[in-house]
Amino acid sequence: MKKNSFFVISALMLAIGYVEVNAQNNARPATSHVFRRGMVIVSPEIKPDKAVTFRLFAPNATEVTISGEWMSGFGASAPLIKNDTGLWTMTVGPLNPELYGYTFSVDGVRTIDPNNVQVRRDGTRYESFLIVPGKESELYISGDVRHGNLTKTWYKSGVLGLTRRLYVYTPAGYETGKGKYPVFYLLHGAGGDEDAWTTMGRAVQILDNLIAAGNAKPMIVVMTNGNAGQSASQNDLPPTSAPGQQPMADYMKYAGKFEESLVSDVIPFIEKNYRTYTDKDHRAIAGLSMGGAHTQTITNNNPDLFDYIGVFSMGIMNFGVPAQDVAKIEKERDAKIELLKKSGYKVYWVGCGKDDFLYGSVTGLRGFLDKHNFKYTYRESTGGHTWANWRIYLSEFAPLLFR
Amino acid sequence: MKKNSFFVISALMLAIGYVEVNAQNNARPATSHVFRRGMVIVSPEIKPDKAVTFRLFAPNATEVTISGEWMSGFGASAPLIKNDTGLWTMTVGPLNPELYGYTFSVDGVRTIDPNNVQVRRDGTRYESFLIVPGKESELYISGDVRHGNLTKTWYKSGVLGLTRRLYVYTPAGYETGKGKYPVFYLLHGAGGDEDAWTTMGRAVQILDNLIAAGNAKPMIVVMTNGNAGQSASQNDLPPTSAPGQQPMADYMKYAGKFEESLVSDVIPFIEKNYRTYTDKDHRAIAGLSMGGAHTQTITNNNPDLFDYIGVFSMGIMNFGVPAQDVAKIEKERDAKIELLKKSGYKVYWVGCGKDDFLYGSVTGLRGFLDKHNFKYTYRESTGGHTWANWRIYLSEFAPLLFR
Repeated sequence: MKKNSFFVISALMLAIGYVEVNAQNNARPATSHVFRRGMVIVSPEIKPDKAVTFRLFAPNATEVTISGEWMSGFGASAPLIKNDTGLWTMTVGPLNPELYGYTFSVDGVRTIDPNNVQVRRDGTRYESFLIVPGKESELYISGDVRHGNLTKTWYKSGVLGLTRRLYVYTPAGYETGKGKYPVFYLLHGAGGDEDAWTTMGRAVQILDNLIAAGNAKPMIVVMTNGNAGQSASQNDLPPTSAPGQQPMADYMKYAGKFEESLVSDVIPFIEKNYRTYTDKDHRAIAGLSMGGAHTQTITNNNPDLFDYIGVFSMGIMNFGVPAQDVAKIEKERDAKIELLKKSGYKVYWVGCGKDDFLYGSVTGLRGFLDKHNFKYTYRESTGGHTWANWRIYLSEFAPLLFR
Repeated sequence: MKKNSFFVISALMLAIGYVEVNAQNNARPATSHVFRRGMVIVSPEIKPDKAVTFRLFAPNATEVTISGEWMSGFGASAPLIKNDTGLWTMTVGPLNPELYGYTFSVDGVRTIDPNNVQVRRDGTRYESFLIVPGKESELYISGDVRHGNLTKTWYKSGVLGLTRRLYVYTPAGYETGKGKYPVFYLLHGAGGDEDAWTTMGRAVQILDNLIAAGNAKPMIVVMTNGNAGQSASQNDLPPTSAPGQQPMADYMKYAGKFEESLVSDVIPFIEKNYRTYTDKDHRAIAGLSMGGAHTQTITNNNPDLFDYIGVFSMGIMNFGVPAQDVAKIEKERDAKIELLKKSGYKVYWVGCGKDDFLYGSVTGLRGFLDKHNFKYTYRESTGGHTWANWRIYLSEFAPLLFR
C-alpha cells in the first residue's frame, strides 16, 4: 500500500520546518471545530468543564455505540447519534479526573477511535484512552520533571529454559550517578505481560512524578512477564508456526515456575547488572490479581527476601487444589506466614476494591493474616478489579518503600 | 468498566499454572478451527502454503473490506464474504514472505482486526500486521539470538528548549562489557516519531539478527524524534489542554532546528552517557523521507561528523524556498557537497523504490552528486515510499557500517 500523499506533503513541509506534522495535532482537544482542514475529526474533545465529546464519521453505519471506563457495569454502552453529514457524536460528563479507556462498536464490531492517537493494549485487546486532567490523574501524566529511563532487556531463565524479556525502570540520575539503589519487583495480572504496568499502569509516569516530588525514594522498578511459557509479550513476537493449541498437559510443567524463576533467575540478573543493594531491606515486591498470587507465593516461600510486600486485588485461593490436599496446603501456608512474620518485614500492604469480585478472597486473606497476628495495612477503595485501582495502589504503595 | 470474568478465571488458573492465559494463544495460527473454545476467532491464519485467511465476526455489518500492504495501489481493498453465522472471511495468497500491515473497514469505518494482537502505530494510524515467514522476512522476526537492549531515555535540547525522548539500542554484550562502540543515528519520516524505527521498522530485530550472524558490527543505534516541536511521541504524552491548532507562524521557528539539535544536543548526550567512539569513522547517520532530508542537511552542514551516510527515499527538494532564493541555495549546496567530498567519507548510500513518487527528486540528487563526482552507492528497489523498502534498506545499509 502506498503512503498517502498527505504524508508526503507533510514530510516536505516538515523537512524545512514550515509546519509541524499533522500527526502531532490530531489528538489534541480542539475548540468547537469538528472538521479541521476539511477532514480531520476531533475525538475525544475534553472541554473546559471536563465534559467529553466523542465523534466518529461513519455515514454508512447503522449503529454506533461507545463503551468506556466511566460507565459502571461490565458491557455497558451508550449510543452515538448521527447527524445528516454522517457524523456520529455523544457527550458525557463532566467526568472526574482519571484515565479512561473506551472503544466504539460499529454495527456490532468493537473498534478503537480512529481519530485518537492514544491507544493502549490490555492483553490481546486494544482500547483508545483519554486522561481527564485534575488532581486525581496528575501522577499519570508525563510531567515537566526529571525522567527515569525504561529499558527492555533480556535474561536467561534456567528455571523456564527460555530467554525472557523484562522492563527495568531506572530513576533519573541513575545513569550519571555511582550510588546503589533499592529494587521494586512489580508484577502484572493474567492477560497482561511485561508491557502492562508501563502502558495500562502508567508506572513510569507515576514513579517519575512521585520521585520528582520527593514522595517516593529513587528506586529501580523491575517489570517481568509472569506468563511462564512466554519469552516476551506476544505483540512483539510473531505468532509461532505451530498450529492450534498446546495440550493442557504442557502447561502443568509451569505450576509455580514463574515464582521460582523470579527468585532464581530475575533477582540475580538484576543484582548483577544494575547498581543495587542486595539485602532484604532494599527489596520490594507487589502484584495485582495473578501477580498478587505470585507475590504471596514468592514471599511465603522466601521469607528472607523482601521487606516490602504489596498484594493488590487478590486474596487466598485454593483454586485447583484437590479437595483432599486443601488441609495440607493450608497447614503449610500457616507455617510459612509464621516464618515471614518472624523474618521482620516492614510493610505488608493489601488493597482491594469494594466491588471487586475477588473481595471475598481478600477477606479470606485478611482473616488468615489476622489469625496469625500478622501486621498489615489494608486499603479498601471504591470500584472493582480495574487498572484504575491498580494505578491508585501503586501511587500509594510506592511512597511507603525503603523508608 | 469491570474486567470480564473470563480474565479472572484465567488469572486463577494461571496463578497455579494449570493453563496458559488465553491471551497467549489468540494470535497463533490455528488449524481449520475457526471458533475455538466457542468464541475465539483465528485471524489471520497463515497456512502452510503461505495463503492467509482473515476472519471477522460481524453479523450486523452490511459491508466488510480489507486493505493490506500486499495490494498495489493506494486505497485498494477487497471484500470479505459473510456466511450465515455472521462470520466474514477472505483468503489471499500465497503471499511472499514479508511483514504486511492491514486494516478492515466495517460499514465504512477503518478498524484493526480485533482478533490479532499484533498491532503497530504508523503516526496517528493503527494497523494490524502479520509476518509471512520465509527468507525475505527472517530478519524481522525476533530470533533465538542474543538480544540487545532498547532504552527510552531523555535529554535536554538547548536548541529546542525541550526535554526530549530518544531510543537507544545497545547491542548484546554492551551492558556487561567495557569496550567502546560506534554509533548509528537513525531518523524517521514525517508522521513518525522516535517509536517508528522500532515498531514500523523492526530495527531491533534487524540489528539483533544481523549482529548475531556476524553480518553487522555491534553498534549503538540512536533513534530520535525528528518533529522539532515534540518532546516525545504523542501516544505516550497526553493531549495538551491548549485548544485548536497553533498558528503556522509558530512553526517557522523550527526550520532547520531538529538538524541543529541532533548535532548540538543529541550527539554530545550520547557520547557522554554511553561508551562510544567519538570520531567520524565511528559515526553513521541515515534517514527515510523527511529523515533523508534531515540526513542531507546535517551531513552537508557538518562534513566532519559522519563517515557513513544513508539517504532513503528522499532526494533534493527546494520545496518552500522562494524562487528568488533557489540559485543561492543551490550554490551553497554545491559548496557544501564539495566540502563533504573533501572530508573523505566512506559510504554514501542512496536508496529509492522504482515506484516512489519521490523518484524524480532522488534522480535529482543523483544528478547533483554525479555533477560533483561525488561517489555513492545507489540501490533501486521495487515498490514505492513504504516501510517494506525502509526495512530492506536498513538490512542492507547496516552491514556496510564501521568496516
